[in-house]
Amino acid sequence: MADFVIRGDIAYTPAPDRLELCPDGYLVCENGLCAGVFRELPERYAGFPLYDRRGMFVIPGYTDLHLHAPQFPNMGIGMDRGLLQWLETLTYPAESLFSDIEKSEPVYQAFTAALRSTFTTRAVVFATTHVPATLRLMELLEESGLHTYVGKLSMDANCSEPLRETSAEAALEAVETWLDACEGRFRHTHPILTPRFAPACTAPLLEGLGEIAARRNVPVQSHLSETHDEIAWVRELFPEASGYADVYRRAGLLGPQCVMAHCIYLEEDEVSLLRETGTVIAHCPTSNTNIRSGIAPISRFLDAGLRIGLGSDISGGHTLDLAEVMREAIRVSGLRWRLCGDVRPLTPTEAFWLATKGGGNYFGKVGSFEPGYEFDALVVDIGNADGRSLRDRFDRLIYLGSADDLYEKYVGGVKLS
Amino acid sequence: MADFVIRGDIAYTPAPDRLELCPDGYLVCENGLCAGVFRELPERYAGFPLYDRRGMFVIPGYTDLHLHAPQFPNMGIGMDRGLLQWLETLTYPAESLFSDIEKSEPVYQAFTAALRSTFTTRAVVFATTHVPATLRLMELLEESGLHTYVGKLSMDANCSEPLRETSAEAALEAVETWLDACEGRFRHTHPILTPRFAPACTAPLLEGLGEIAARRNVPVQSHLSETHDEIAWVRELFPEASGYADVYRRAGLLGPQCVMAHCIYLEEDEVSLLRETGTVIAHCPTSNTNIRSGIAPISRFLDAGLRIGLGSDISGGHTLDLAEVMREAIRVSGLRWRLCGDVRPLTPTEAFWLATKGGGNYFGKVGSFEPGYEFDALVVDIGNADGRSLRDRFDRLIYLGSADDLYEKYVGGVKLS
Repeated sequence: MADFVIRGDIAYTPAPDRLELCPDGYLVCENGLCAGVFRELPERYAGFPLYDRRGMFVIPGYTDLHLHAPQFPNMGIGMDRGLLQWLETLTYPAESLFSDIEKSEPVYQAFTAALRSTFTTRAVVFATTHVPATLRLMELLEESGLHTYVGKLSMDANCSEPLRETSAEAALEAVETWLDACEGRFRHTHPILTPRFAPACTAPLLEGLGEIAARRNVPVQSHLSETHDEIAWVRELFPEASGYADVYRRAGLLGPQCVMAHCIYLEEDEVSLLRETGTVIAHCPTSNTNIRSGIAPISRFLDAGLRIGLGSDISGGHTLDLAEVMREAIRVSGLRWRLCGDVRPLTPTEAFWLATKGGGNYFGKVGSFEPGYEFDALVVDIGNADGRSLRDRFDRLIYLGSADDLYEKYVGGVKLS
Repeated sequence: MADFVIRGDIAYTPAPDRLELCPDGYLVCENGLCAGVFRELPERYAGFPLYDRRGMFVIPGYTDLHLHAPQFPNMGIGMDRGLLQWLETLTYPAESLFSDIEKSEPVYQAFTAALRSTFTTRAVVFATTHVPATLRLMELLEESGLHTYVGKLSMDANCSEPLRETSAEAALEAVETWLDACEGRFRHTHPILTPRFAPACTAPLLEGLGEIAARRNVPVQSHLSETHDEIAWVRELFPEASGYADVYRRAGLLGPQCVMAHCIYLEEDEVSLLRETGTVIAHCPTSNTNIRSGIAPISRFLDAGLRIGLGSDISGGHTLDLAEVMREAIRVSGLRWRLCGDVRPLTPTEAFWLATKGGGNYFGKVGSFEPGYEFDALVVDIGNADGRSLRDRFDRLIYLGSADDLYEKYVGGVKLS
């Protein structure tokens, strides 16, 4: 693992309300880890190769906690259909094609290349129910240099025929087969159990996945509390549970290795449940706006000490560019504040924290430049022809920055070529 | 004026609820006007030069009804300050620099080049109070090939010292001087009277501008009903008026040549007043979200038969790219529907109409491909590697299209090089 130093305008957020700006500073990578940020380069690093990126931003990599790789070709299409109709008419038909690995190949190749070109260094990804195509996606992501969790979907109820697994037993067997096939195969690509969402799973499937999660120590991802219709449907399907989150809790699926996407309409006891279990929320503001799900009360969750990051949620989201998702988080929080008055708006610093350390936390010490953090870094060139202050330029990074401005990208100390 | 034909996938909206899609069709330009859209090229146009743009979209130009040229360098900065504080700490200081034409030159050059590179073919622009810099901006816009209205600002109250004109008389004299200087000077760049907004103008200034508008037949632009604080302030400053819109009405400033930006919190009698006078609303959703002003009830205005188009409103807006403003109009309308339930969401077709014919209407027969319309056309290449239907590709144009996809641009029958 190479050691090196990057010189530039460094920005990172050790806490949601704490922005560290180091103009013309030095960021040191030693053994794949961040050794620190320095205004003057310490003598002990003088021998390290120095990459001079003065005038550019050097920031932590972004983590995308929720996205659907097979939906990549559907980005921007059918946004006016509402969640359940959108699933049936557009999403499920697209995912059905992945039973044919020939058809999945160009989609997963294009998806991986696109994700690699964004600010995203780490991602937690939904695939489809199909084992061969999911393994192929994992190979492509492993080759890409990104660090990811990838989930073979599990779903055995209430969805269109070709996608639905024939029984809970068959679905669980497929998961075990897939986990076996993953063993020892990847360094930076990890399997994650993926019940699609409660309405598409029977209780035995959810319980079986909970059992596998515990026995094989595998993390979990799913959806939680995205729309009113969906919540009502869950109450109908699982009358024994006290609420939507409780469906997952009963199956043993919540916990510090679990990511739940959306969480727009959580009840107070659900907020407590997520906090107590250490469950991570993937906030997906572009998607939630596009399909009119609503606006999650993220500042309230932050103040309550929940674990939260961002998700692009393609193709409910229309872009893989987490820079856009990040500013959307700020922007919709301001609308909820204005229209409902029940939350405060997110600050640019908080949104940046969500994109970096908030989401990165799911991967361990990731998403910050504090010493000992894994070295995920982006060099971003947004120019400064008019000589603005670093604080103004940070605002520009938040509101105007995009994948187009990416100059170079490091993941776990390795530069992606 | 050259005659020619463009072949491609043609899309336009003769009405807010009517999308015309003509796959692999022919769009004919004759004497700078649109002669029609044809599935087969009529014999009478067979001799016209044919530009083969198969696989690309051919759509009407977009009209930006509201933007502040001098704020171009401030895009993306200070978005969390709220309207009135944002004006005092960021916007007014930036505009003050335009007393020095040397300082205005690089900003207006960069602004004009940027605007030219977007989907915008026509625009209604705020400058500053300064006559020489405003005339220079008009020269640059004239050279650009865009068709615009440009306003020297008028403001004589309640704003920081260097920007405030010393009296209503002095402000009105400056307007007359400027209008005289514009006479016969431009073909496609027209002056427009521009009281900043009611709180920054005395009643005598507003009345004087109303008198000039009538006497010299000059159009008018301003701001109306953007935030609660502003509305309360107007009530305090103009107790004799029945409301914010009435302040402008009393001065003779409303009418079919008048554009009012924002209109988020109109009272019912104000909606009627705008309809009766034919006043045009510039809906600025990116700006209204950024500075947390709110969400204007645009579907209600459409259903009420008001005249409406879109505005990027830089630098309250963070982008000049009206393609982004257009999708924001859809997206925030869905959030208002979800959070307040008092309006229906805009459709992609309605948003496209707002960007094209809705705003273009301010310039006459502009923004559609019906016969007799001025020939403003964009050729947009968003690709179609996966062979989707034209309707799906229209969705992609709306949700994914950006200035980066612009292949060529015609304004009034002239191709911008």
